[in-house]
Amino acid sequence: MFKKILIANRGEIALRVIRTCREMGIKSVAVYSTADKESLHVRFADEAVCIGPPSSSDSYLKMSNIISAAEITNADAIHPGYGFLSENARFSKICEEHGIKFIGASPEMISKMGDKATAKETMKKAGVPTVPGSDGILETYEVAEKVAKEIGFPVMLKATAGGGGKGMRAVWKIEDLKNAWSSARTEAKAAFGNDGMYMEKLIEEPRHIEIQIVGDSSGRACHLSERDCSIQRRHQKLTEETPSPFMTDSLRKKMGEAAVKAAEFIKYEGAGTIEFLVDKNRKFYFMEMNTRIQVEHPITEQVIGNFDLIREQIKVAYNVPILGINYFPNQHSIECRINAEDPYNGFRPSPGKITTFHAPGGHGVRLDTHVYAGYTIPPNYDSMIAKLIVTAQTREEAISKMKRALDEFVIEGIKTTIPFHRQLMDDPNYVSGNYTTKFMEDFVMKKEDQ
Amino acid sequence: MFKKILIANRGEIALRVIRTCREMGIKSVAVYSTADKESLHVRFADEAVCIGPPSSSDSYLKMSNIISAAEITNADAIHPGYGFLSENARFSKICEEHGIKFIGASPEMISKMGDKATAKETMKKAGVPTVPGSDGILETYEVAEKVAKEIGFPVMLKATAGGGGKGMRAVWKIEDLKNAWSSARTEAKAAFGNDGMYMEKLIEEPRHIEIQIVGDSSGRACHLSERDCSIQRRHQKLTEETPSPFMTDSLRKKMGEAAVKAAEFIKYEGAGTIEFLVDKNRKFYFMEMNTRIQVEHPITEQVIGNFDLIREQIKVAYNVPILGINYFPNQHSIECRINAEDPYNGFRPSPGKITTFHAPGGHGVRLDTHVYAGYTIPPNYDSMIAKLIVTAQTREEAISKMKRALDEFVIEGIKTTIPFHRQLMDDPNYVSGNYTTKFMEDFVMKKEDQ
Repeated sequence: MFKKILIANRGEIALRVIRTCREMGIKSVAVYSTADKESLHVRFADEAVCIGPPSSSDSYLKMSNIISAAEITNADAIHPGYGFLSENARFSKICEEHGIKFIGASPEMISKMGDKATAKETMKKAGVPTVPGSDGILETYEVAEKVAKEIGFPVMLKATAGGGGKGMRAVWKIEDLKNAWSSARTEAKAAFGNDGMYMEKLIEEPRHIEIQIVGDSSGRACHLSERDCSIQRRHQKLTEETPSPFMTDSLRKKMGEAAVKAAEFIKYEGAGTIEFLVDKNRKFYFMEMNTRIQVEHPITEQVIGNFDLIREQIKVAYNVPILGINYFPNQHSIECRINAEDPYNGFRPSPGKITTFHAPGGHGVRLDTHVYAGYTIPPNYDSMIAKLIVTAQTREEAISKMKRALDEFVIEGIKTTIPFHRQLMDDPNYVSGNYTTKFMEDFVMKKEDQ
Repeated sequence: MFKKILIANRGEIALRVIRTCREMGIKSVAVYSTADKESLHVRFADEAVCIGPPSSSDSYLKMSNIISAAEITNADAIHPGYGFLSENARFSKICEEHGIKFIGASPEMISKMGDKATAKETMKKAGVPTVPGSDGILETYEVAEKVAKEIGFPVMLKATAGGGGKGMRAVWKIEDLKNAWSSARTEAKAAFGNDGMYMEKLIEEPRHIEIQIVGDSSGRACHLSERDCSIQRRHQKLTEETPSPFMTDSLRKKMGEAAVKAAEFIKYEGAGTIEFLVDKNRKFYFMEMNTRIQVEHPITEQVIGNFDLIREQIKVAYNVPILGINYFPNQHSIECRINAEDPYNGFRPSPGKITTFHAPGGHGVRLDTHVYAGYTIPPNYDSMIAKLIVTAQTREEAISKMKRALDEFVIEGIKTTIPFHRQLMDDPNYVSGNYTTKFMEDFVMKKEDQ
């Protein structure tokens, strides 16, 4: 097994990986920017190396510094977590060139799946349903107009290098297409340095339901069932659950089979997620594939008997074969992403010092966090500071458990999204399970109790 | 369902019950002594009633005060937790007389199982193996000597009203019997007001393995497999695990069947535990039955799919029938009792103010506690301040997980048993699973790191 793994990330996911390393008897190396030296991921690793100033581009995205840290500490593998360099083909390649195992996808796989248009073409070839749309990148505005007329409005314009909702526009009628085309391209260029656009039919009443898969070096893959991530604000997931309340046994079987087929078609190695849109008639369409661990992976772990997905990633990277059986949920799990944001004020980021921190606990409660009382959240990074995960035998019990866990959770000194989640868990549309990715468009925070 | 439940207890178990009440939509009433007003069980209950001064006999054992609190708050049921009044037949009777449902055993059941000699007689009748010994209470020293000769040394003298190791003596040869007889009687009289003694053959290399059972008002019972509680110091459990490393599938089946037979024979209603001694040849003997929830119940919940035993107790008390199926572990769970005691100083109690409290978290970690940073542990009660529970797919992984969770757990201001558990998890005899109830007799704490 690997002797030492460097975790090229920060915050809760770095700590998550360090914990599993420790449990596996593998030494861990944390890297950190000067803004993060008080984070728990630094404290709990066996070694820690400062890789630069707060700016991500000079630290967590600075490949040379990370590779140097791995070489200095003699790490034989790098776990990239999510975000940052986790889906960067060049970084995967550089690790390979330095004889350091990248615990993630190969450069070729990342390239293939990272470009959305290419990914869609590949999935079509694998026989996985995709959203009707342009065959790849739209060369000109005229082509865009032609495709839109063919597939019919509403349509969605998407940046081929996109993510996080940037460079995306829904267009409901032909008169609006030209403006959308220009503004989406400008946004994409600024965000990704690439203004390539493609087009898809807009799915109405869409649910975001993703399938977790794991593949090994023998080319075999299995699935670990679904996660429903439809509760999103500006394409950022807020809370996830499994099983999906919209799921049926036969749909799970079909989507699971499609995901395994896709993974085996591309000979996928490691943990990955195939994201689908599911329409109101339970037809599903490939959306994108994430070639890394997801933020919301714990809910899957919880409902399939305490499976450890990080352990599985590490084992597969070391060429340990997977069991090759599909896993089905026998419990219900919900995750709430606790962000340092003010839900009463447009979810504006709220960095600063945590003065009081009291974690919920007891039966069915899991908390993944790198923060604590006295910790100062730097303004430089993503605002997520904790993931609260509850597990129970039914969805109804899981919602009740989440409510009481949120009620117990005390974080003072900054604003957090705890009140948002608490209101969400009482929302009739959420409770009914009848929600789509549009849910947040109509959601209004109730007045704050004073 | 019940509208409101009063929890006649304190600390972590009171909070445990309050959490499930909240998840079930049942209002909760905490009671507290003046020493406990800052405990989380008081803060998280819907209502809280002060029932007296710190001394238990004037508060948590004061039946009239507790019944008054239930009547004032209009509670329709009382959950007694463990210890205090949980196995007090008179209290169960008084609740009954006041029309308040006692979430526990009937007065008759408590009387029958609370007297150890009577319990043993009952189990014999049910066909459950018992330890060879006196048929009930030993009338005189002469009878004791006769019985000892019949069953053969070594023998164990036990107080019929005993518990917690008080009034108990192991005797290895006849010359020592008389002294043991006198001192055990004196101790029993002082501790329980009852110097009745009985005798049993002393089981060599004994394991303490108990079976969790649940019965309902139809007379049906089921078991939820075993817990190994052999790691004890002066008959106080320190850490528990399930499955038992000493268990085999066929022994689990036999012990489970014996426990269900016993529960159905006595028409047991509610959650209960049948404690067995298992000898080196895997022969098992009934030891005692606890007619209440046990401290170590969470490990059972963890390994049988997040089952909620408190919810089950409440449902059964409301005459909801059980499913009647036996549960078998499909994971491994370990609990460490974190006590405010100094393991480097004979486990001397260490009450006082907690200045820093950092809870472990992440995959497979559960923490049940009523304390927090700034909380002052009163000197009046049991020293247990938290239960750290880990769950993993194998015993080896569970031990690794417990180690990393203990490493993350920071409690400052008082001494705790965390260093003891950390050393235990590295102990070759513990790790091998080859331990008996004698384990702690040879255990020596290593020097404290400075």
